[in-house]
Amino acid sequence: MNFEIIKELSVTSPEKIVMLVLDGLGGLPDLKSGKSELETAVIPNLDAVAAEGICGLADPVAPGITPGSGPGHLALFGYDPLVNRIGRGVLEAVGIDIELGPDDMAARGNFCTVDDKGIITDRRAGRISTEKCIELCKILDGMKIEGVDIKLYPVREHRFVAVFRGSNLDIHISESDPSRTGVAPMEIKAEIPAAKNTADIVNKFIARTKDVLSTNQPANMILLRGFAKKPQLLSMKEIYKLNTLAIAAYPMYRGLARLVGMGVADTRAGIEEKIKTLKKNYQKYDFFFLHIKLTDTAGEDGDFTRKVKLLEEVDVALPALTALKPDVLVVTGDHSTPAVFSGHSWHPVPVAISSKYCRTDGVGEFSENAFISGGLGRIHATEIMPLAMANARKLIKFGA
Amino acid sequence: MNFEIIKELSVTSPEKIVMLVLDGLGGLPDLKSGKSELETAVIPNLDAVAAEGICGLADPVAPGITPGSGPGHLALFGYDPLVNRIGRGVLEAVGIDIELGPDDMAARGNFCTVDDKGIITDRRAGRISTEKCIELCKILDGMKIEGVDIKLYPVREHRFVAVFRGSNLDIHISESDPSRTGVAPMEIKAEIPAAKNTADIVNKFIARTKDVLSTNQPANMILLRGFAKKPQLLSMKEIYKLNTLAIAAYPMYRGLARLVGMGVADTRAGIEEKIKTLKKNYQKYDFFFLHIKLTDTAGEDGDFTRKVKLLEEVDVALPALTALKPDVLVVTGDHSTPAVFSGHSWHPVPVAISSKYCRTDGVGEFSENAFISGGLGRIHATEIMPLAMANARKLIKFGA
Repeated sequence: MNFEIIKELSVTSPEKIVMLVLDGLGGLPDLKSGKSELETAVIPNLDAVAAEGICGLADPVAPGITPGSGPGHLALFGYDPLVNRIGRGVLEAVGIDIELGPDDMAARGNFCTVDDKGIITDRRAGRISTEKCIELCKILDGMKIEGVDIKLYPVREHRFVAVFRGSNLDIHISESDPSRTGVAPMEIKAEIPAAKNTADIVNKFIARTKDVLSTNQPANMILLRGFAKKPQLLSMKEIYKLNTLAIAAYPMYRGLARLVGMGVADTRAGIEEKIKTLKKNYQKYDFFFLHIKLTDTAGEDGDFTRKVKLLEEVDVALPALTALKPDVLVVTGDHSTPAVFSGHSWHPVPVAISSKYCRTDGVGEFSENAFISGGLGRIHATEIMPLAMANARKLIKFGA
Repeated sequence: MNFEIIKELSVTSPEKIVMLVLDGLGGLPDLKSGKSELETAVIPNLDAVAAEGICGLADPVAPGITPGSGPGHLALFGYDPLVNRIGRGVLEAVGIDIELGPDDMAARGNFCTVDDKGIITDRRAGRISTEKCIELCKILDGMKIEGVDIKLYPVREHRFVAVFRGSNLDIHISESDPSRTGVAPMEIKAEIPAAKNTADIVNKFIARTKDVLSTNQPANMILLRGFAKKPQLLSMKEIYKLNTLAIAAYPMYRGLARLVGMGVADTRAGIEEKIKTLKKNYQKYDFFFLHIKLTDTAGEDGDFTRKVKLLEEVDVALPALTALKPDVLVVTGDHSTPAVFSGHSWHPVPVAISSKYCRTDGVGEFSENAFISGGLGRIHATEIMPLAMANARKLIKFGA
């Protein structure tokens, strides 16, 4: 739905919304038992949320489309991920807590190895240590080319982020990473005439970097891709008139929250710690995004048993959250990460919304299959925020 | 969804998708038994597909809209039928296996009868025999007017297709068929200035035809309508990177498949023959559209019992298809044709998608009512292809 309508209808109210996001929540049945992670886990408190709430399944992007973490979260915050796209460079920057200015252009970088003819022999420079990466970034950091400052930030092993800080940078340039060995890194080319100057600057930066690294082994060259600027998103304050707080430990989710203008809490990892952070800040905000990462990691690792265990840990911690009696509690995920799939998947994500006015359905179990019969039916994930707002009585009547 | 996204995410993979389309699949309950055709038929193999797959109901165009065969199939192939419209002239041409070039303009034609004042007395010229139609088309075929070649193709009885072959033809012209008797055929008029030349040419063609036919009875005049050019559709290869094969016996469905760039197999009619064709070509393609026409014909004829029998025949043949173990099997229809309705209807169409990763639901019976509780919920038919692609692992992740 159009933000213009939501902006027109949204009002502030004392009611509080808590959105608990279990990353990679949806699953698939284990081949032996025929039961999914949620169906296997003993989760009486989550079942109670389902019983008291209205349930359904949400598509973060569209049926059949597997969302990355960026699109998955944008959809939960109400932003259509097909319209509001976040470039790889920006997501990588956000993932290590770099604050990007509106003119900054970010790129993903790899240290790599080239032979004496300039042919790439290893795109990851033998996965150099993170320490080495930090050292090399320090050496290369701070170049200035034609008025553009270039900052290098280490990520992990061979990976880094390059931020080009200057005016009139244009992201419509090609990548230097050919995504394979046996060829030379590609020259950066302008994809539109206005980007010619930017391409020149990046090529000069790569050439200078090559000179500096020439005696270094195995990391004697770099590859750049995913040039992007921060998307200009309306803030959640502008759209929903909410005072928002993100309670997340992983940099990427903290960064995503900042992109939509959320406040970001200092918090320790672990669900008990995060609920403590929630309690501490409960009076000061009216929307809380509480993010749990490890359910996704277990799914990505293909570890069905660990994902089950993590769901049970969340369940044990849940009463400390529900004891706050939020006016609206949303429990969902940013996408499915079935353990049998060992990765993100396209399957719609369970969502339960509990409030005094939610119109409870007959669902009494928090699971993919039980939620098929839920009162929400199959919705688009961008519809969750308007529903949460409505349940919190933060949306006035449309038309007379 | 936007094809741009699918184009961006689609990849080739060895997995094979078989889409079995039972034309006019959905039905309505028989007034006496209260059971639909699918609920009456004994179809254990289709029930097994439902049990192993994920089920739902699909709207080919929109709730309440009754689709023709063109829109129904376009939606199954992922093309929004409201955006990608196929003109009547083109559909009629495609229906008799005429290959249209990009500049060709096609129209539906009727032989009709006019009195000595030029007033239409019979819009169908007493439904002349197909032989007579063939003879008249032969006489009129091959005129050339201002550089435009005009070809006439007989269809059946009084119906024919006229193809105008030349450059700069513009389809924005009015029709000559007033759709009633007691009036003269209408002059063709340009609806936009650029179409004036085309209108002139068509009027000259009609005048010349009237001269040629003047001594003929009862077919002494023609009526033309549905001027259209072939829609410029992206091919399924461009969108999905699929090697596609259509296994259909009726010209219209073969023609529709060609419009989206499918390969079209030589095949005999009958489901066993078509499955043999599938087997023979199984290694060479990764997407198969297998079309069964007769279920629709029985529905159109209002023959409930015959539709039930035909569904049972499909069911008996099905194991030969499933024995190929396609990675993804889709069983659906292009629209509903309830026998009690004796025609196409707006009712959503049952769809089952079976694959290793489909997230099976609790549905165990292949029927309209059972599918209401399916895991797919109620989807748009254009979402079937992205889902089939995802289940075949042919779509990479969207965003990071």
